[in-house]
Amino acid sequence: MCELLGMSANVPTDICFSFAGLIRRGGETGPHRDGWGIAFYEGRGLRAFHDPLPSADSRIAELLIAYPIKSRVVISHIRQANVGDICLANTHPFSRELWGVMWCFAHNGQLDRQLFDWPLTYYRPAGTTDSEYAFCWILDQIRAHYPDAPPQDPSALVELVHDCCEKLRGLGVFNMLLSESTQLFCYCSTKLSWITRRAPFGEAHLRDRDMSVDFYKETTPNDIVTVIATEPLTDNEQWQRLAPGEMVVFVDGEVERQISSQDGAGR
Amino acid sequence: MCELLGMSANVPTDICFSFAGLIRRGGETGPHRDGWGIAFYEGRGLRAFHDPLPSADSRIAELLIAYPIKSRVVISHIRQANVGDICLANTHPFSRELWGVMWCFAHNGQLDRQLFDWPLTYYRPAGTTDSEYAFCWILDQIRAHYPDAPPQDPSALVELVHDCCEKLRGLGVFNMLLSESTQLFCYCSTKLSWITRRAPFGEAHLRDRDMSVDFYKETTPNDIVTVIATEPLTDNEQWQRLAPGEMVVFVDGEVERQISSQDGAGR
Repeated sequence: MCELLGMSANVPTDICFSFAGLIRRGGETGPHRDGWGIAFYEGRGLRAFHDPLPSADSRIAELLIAYPIKSRVVISHIRQANVGDICLANTHPFSRELWGVMWCFAHNGQLDRQLFDWPLTYYRPAGTTDSEYAFCWILDQIRAHYPDAPPQDPSALVELVHDCCEKLRGLGVFNMLLSESTQLFCYCSTKLSWITRRAPFGEAHLRDRDMSVDFYKETTPNDIVTVIATEPLTDNEQWQRLAPGEMVVFVDGEVERQISSQDGAGR
Repeated sequence: MCELLGMSANVPTDICFSFAGLIRRGGETGPHRDGWGIAFYEGRGLRAFHDPLPSADSRIAELLIAYPIKSRVVISHIRQANVGDICLANTHPFSRELWGVMWCFAHNGQLDRQLFDWPLTYYRPAGTTDSEYAFCWILDQIRAHYPDAPPQDPSALVELVHDCCEKLRGLGVFNMLLSESTQLFCYCSTKLSWITRRAPFGEAHLRDRDMSVDFYKETTPNDIVTVIATEPLTDNEQWQRLAPGEMVVFVDGEVERQISSQDGAGR
């Protein structure tokens, strides 16, 4: 299994603190030694850093802790390989363009091999993971429904993505983060938690290393920053867990839409 | 105008030495202060680093000089903006997937605005540069001719790419590097030079900073490494200049194919 980390914020914000906690799970406090990646949106631009080396030993990861890249939407992943070799092509997050925007995706879980029989039309994986295949399949469904532009009604897109995720969950474990630069789609199959930080800000302490940050000193009173992770990253704050089959969509750090599983497994 | 740097090699090779020379042109020895990027293929995987900051001041660039990432195909670019704002979405190299491989592209030059009237079908730019638009247009042509897989005859693909480049050159200056992980397509509109280093290796000295490398110490006798750049990067070696309209395709560091302009402007 892998670890996911996402962020949605209403102002460009760095994720150094959360990332510092996450990468310890890549070979130190966790077993996820098989590569890591992080992608930052800056407007419609997307910059990603990938490393097939363990994050706890990675010089690139070390730089990113010290070098605050400010972004409003971030997706990160550290990998413990199950399907697919350890190599760069299999390192999340994955990205593809649709409607002139770069979509970005990371997955935690494992899907039945029958996934690889599901037909793909527009997008094909470069690597051999179930994750990248699932990403291509989701984008294929979106593109088949809306070839040229997003639907006028944004909730139609959210429902379509949720529907795709539900189908994928039928094949196994499918926790996922997906974005097209403004919306962060967070779908839970087994494990995903989130916290929204806003004024009055307090201090947070990481579970995975002895490191605290006083967000009061780091923020302005109007900042709204949501962090999503496989497991809560701090031990002194109240994180909310998503239910199986639930999807939450964040925009500007706020919950834009929340959908439960149609089979009633959600809350 | 911008600066291009590419590499094709028969063994995974780092490009630290050449990159160290190139990035000085991003704000120190050259005027190209408007961002930079570099993309490394590792098998079918592609990892790119982008920074809208000047390369001469960039901490990410500094890391990449010190941290040898070994690759057989590399494309890099430092930008002096003409069309399109300075922002991440406009920072080369650009990438898109076709046939399950990631294609990567960087451009030096400027094209007439009528380019933006050329229709696009499958690929659309995320940013506002003529460069990314041209890249999408080239991939569109390739996909229209070969929707599912590359042609059986590899020279058909080379000829198609050359034909696209010739059309684009009709709109202005179009020096470009393009790859799909094994072939490096290098097309010259005005300026592009290359050098192939192989045994017996000697010492090379950078033009842009007082730095030498003795490749004899860094290589094995079977290594073949070609470096392509807008202008020669070293001052004590013999670089070959491409003629206007000429395309050279490198595979494993060797010239795989060389095509001159059909209008006879090539050599």
